Amino acid sequence: MKTIDINCDFGEGFGVYQLPRITEVLKYVSSVNIACGFHAGDPTLMREAVEQAIQHDVKIGAHPGYNDLVGFGRRDFNLSPQEVYDIILYQVGALSGYVNKYGVKLNHVKPHGALYNKAAKCEQTSKAIAQAVYDFSPDVKLYALANSVTVKIAREVGLVVCEEAFIDRTYEEDGSLTSRKKAGSVIEDEKQAVEQIMQIVSEQTVTTINDKSIPMYADTFCIHGDNLKAVQFAKSVFERLQKIPIQIGKG
Amino acid sequence: MKTIDINCDFGEGFGVYQLPRITEVLKYVSSVNIACGFHAGDPTLMREAVEQAIQHDVKIGAHPGYNDLVGFGRRDFNLSPQEVYDIILYQVGALSGYVNKYGVKLNHVKPHGALYNKAAKCEQTSKAIAQAVYDFSPDVKLYALANSVTVKIAREVGLVVCEEAFIDRTYEEDGSLTSRKKAGSVIEDEKQAVEQIMQIVSEQTVTTINDKSIPMYADTFCIHGDNLKAVQFAKSVFERLQKIPIQIGKG
Amino acid sequence: MKTIDINCDFGEGFGVYQLPRITEVLKYVSSVNIACGFHAGDPTLMREAVEQAIQHDVKIGAHPGYNDLVGFGRRDFNLSPQEVYDIILYQVGALSGYVNKYGVKLNHVKPHGALYNKAAKCEQTSKAIAQAVYDFSPDVKLYALANSVTVKIAREVGLVVCEEAFIDRTYEEDGSLTSRKKAGSVIEDEKQAVEQIMQIVSEQTVTTINDKSIPMYADTFCIHGDNLKAVQFAKSVFERLQKIPIQIGKG
Amino acid sequence: MKTIDINCDFGEGFGVYQLPRITEVLKYVSSVNIACGFHAGDPTLMREAVEQAIQHDVKIGAHPGYNDLVGFGRRDFNLSPQEVYDIILYQVGALSGYVNKYGVKLNHVKPHGALYNKAAKCEQTSKAIAQAVYDFSPDVKLYALANSVTVKIAREVGLVVCEEAFIDRTYEEDGSLTSRKKAGSVIEDEKQAVEQIMQIVSEQTVTTINDKSIPMYADTFCIHGDNLKAVQFAKSVFERLQKIPIQIGKG
Repeated sequence: MKTIDINCDFGEGFGVYQLPRITEVLKYVSSVNIACGFHAGDPTLMREAVEQAIQHDVKIGAHPGYNDLVGFGRRDFNLSPQEVYDIILYQVGALSGYVNKYGVKLNHVKPHGALYNKAAKCEQTSKAIAQAVYDFSPDVKLYALANSVTVKIAREVGLVVCEEAFIDRTYEEDGSLTSRKKAGSVIEDEKQAVEQIMQIVSEQTVTTINDKSIPMYADTFCIHGDNLKAVQFAKSVFERLQKIPIQIGKG
Repeated sequence: MKTIDINCDFGEGFGVYQLPRITEVLKYVSSVNIACGFHAGDPTLMREAVEQAIQHDVKIGAHPGYNDLVGFGRRDFNLSPQEVYDIILYQVGALSGYVNKYGVKLNHVKPHGALYNKAAKCEQTSKAIAQAVYDFSPDVKLYALANSVTVKIAREVGLVVCEEAFIDRTYEEDGSLTSRKKAGSVIEDEKQAVEQIMQIVSEQTVTTINDKSIPMYADTFCIHGDNLKAVQFAKSVFERLQKIPIQIGKG
Repeated sequence: MKTIDINCDFGEGFGVYQLPRITEVLKYVSSVNIACGFHAGDPTLMREAVEQAIQHDVKIGAHPGYNDLVGFGRRDFNLSPQEVYDIILYQVGALSGYVNKYGVKLNHVKPHGALYNKAAKCEQTSKAIAQAVYDFSPDVKLYALANSVTVKIAREVGLVVCEEAFIDRTYEEDGSLTSRKKAGSVIEDEKQAVEQIMQIVSEQTVTTINDKSIPMYADTFCIHGDNLKAVQFAKSVFERLQKIPIQIGKG
Repeated sequence: MKTIDINCDFGEGFGVYQLPRITEVLKYVSSVNIACGFHAGDPTLMREAVEQAIQHDVKIGAHPGYNDLVGFGRRDFNLSPQEVYDIILYQVGALSGYVNKYGVKLNHVKPHGALYNKAAKCEQTSKAIAQAVYDFSPDVKLYALANSVTVKIAREVGLVVCEEAFIDRTYEEDGSLTSRKKAGSVIEDEKQAVEQIMQIVSEQTVTTINDKSIPMYADTFCIHGDNLKAVQFAKSVFERLQKIPIQIGKG
């Protein structure tokens, strides 16, 4: 039986804003990316998110972003590579305190939002992120956009990289995600989503939005879990995968 | 030859405000308490402070405070013990990333300002701080006001506690520091400062502001290093101690 | 026909966290207290909240709080009266920009959370708040807990004060709100809520939780509107008042 | 006798970091740009800065920037025009509270750092800034880089614009400032600085770093005042101007 990794962002609330504390999604994923207080998350929420992840036997990753709470880390900030390095190491360290106390090890780091997107195209930013993760611990994996600059650079730095594909998004012919502004960018049908996963897993290709087949390899699949509809979608995908059967690689 | 530990706060600037980057003080102390981004400090400054401390062979501690940048952590905030626990673990973890990359271990944690003062009198706050440090690592020491509630509670939690006396402050008969509002609260004469150190080291007593002798034990001595005058004072104290000779316990 | 003022907090989201943007409540109230970016709210959300209030012909007030986004302004911070003055004037000024552009005047200021509660008992805090509002404009009203220290002090400063009673909370014999920890503190039945309003309006008394009648005068009534259930409750109260008939004093 | 306006940034400290509270510079300038809490400044510091400016009979302007305290507003943030509009109106409003209480009117707005530079080249950003200032009050002037996009756009919006030249910086042939990375970018000789002012005032030209003469018109001249050396320089320039005589247009 095949085993795949499905990851989702988690703990992306702040203070009284408990939007993303939908713990049910933890049943349907094998790893989570926990916000570290810069684009979302706060110390109390981070600790709780770690505890919930451990209860559900889900691997824990840090999800560091730009220091942009009001913009949720989605706006590009013009930081130097050194500044990127410094904020990554800060956030990964901050989360690790909550993880270590349970005798668990941090599994991975996945940059958030505008930082993830910038790194995918920028060698310097990717280098800064990868070096920070490596300096924290060479045993921590980096989750990065499949085929991106980040993958190549992080491997040169010496990290284990998990290439990431998306379950609920379609692709362009160049391997990039279809812009959310275009019709058909988001996959809302769970059957189609599972087919996309299966095609990537079995054939290492994906069918693009304009119906071409391009190479696509993935070590981990990203799904959303930040609202009730997303959780329902994740559940349906999970149940369909069980029947194939494909297992979600917990623990 | 006797060896003592002298500690000072370090890295308490923020962004362009580089006030406390007076590295010369690192020659005259054996341990530093580095601000962690809540009351002062930012990721870049923290990394630089760690690098400077390592260059000067000084032991590194975390200096976590309330999340009060504009008030420099000097205002009491009514946080629950759980919130105190969470912010301590966050900040200690955040600093540890910069420390670990050099193969160095975090030596200690010393809470800052209003949090340090509240803990000195409050069992619940002390418990929250001590447990967070213990959960980060039982090998990390806690620096706490000599004779305070914190000392007792943190030892019960299982931590090694370093009781702290002050080099440039006088004491009241009950062992508390003389309020800064009173005349004679601050010791500005380095001869008097060294005599106070010597008395604490040799006799385990201190002479109070009203000329009584009270018991005073110290594992570490706090000195200020956040302005040029303070650094000059630290240098003079250091040189006088060298002649006795008393060594500052670097490394 | 009698006319009363019903106020609710509004715009208490932050960035992507749009929790309180439930505009329907604007149909059932005559004034809103808009968060100013310290305990909640951000520039974009503030502008939008002002626009929505104007569309619904609702009077606009500022809702300044402690600079405690992660704690939602509910934790007491030990600020000096001068600091309280300064943060009030900052926040009221900040909101006023969005209000003035529509040719509308700010109607009132209502402090938030821990600051409101502290002021209710503390003369110095009340004085600082009242003076800041007065210095912003003597024409702006202050909403304050009925019978509280704030009412007396703010009138001495020269402000018009609107004494505030609560629609969905019960009272103790000393006129304070029943603690949320006690059974019966929250009124969930709209009939009971309307009866409480009617008794305060007609007889200027309220029946306490232990069934005594005490004096209670109110210029404005506070209702919650920050979730769907609260909005439904506000609607029911509004409809019952319409039938009496009591009018909500819009505009 | 000619009268010119010399402006400098002011109040660019934060909390305990009182770096820019050098009030002496207020003797040598006729207007100040006060930081509004986003890239620097806090409520208490803003109030104090306003009080000091009024004492020295100096015109008061707001100096809004990106919400980037740790980067001092010097890093470009990718904000939408609407977001720029919203943060400008927030900050200008916030400062105005402190100004109005003294019966003084806000004189102008000058954007800070990366926002100023972006606007100089970007129509949309200039439009957002100008509209926010206009909506706050059509009577408030905008200080903008001479010959820049901002000047043209803000006049279209209906604002009075003061074109700004620099006293201590040299120019390139295209009218832009010589990059700080190039030799000769900063004018450190007060005689040269005064000659540059005189040439701009009398001939409406400036001599570029490569010795060409280009047109240069200025309604206001910017000088730095954020450190002791800068204040000394401002004083020397002021004294030389007095002898010509050119007056600094106080009040």
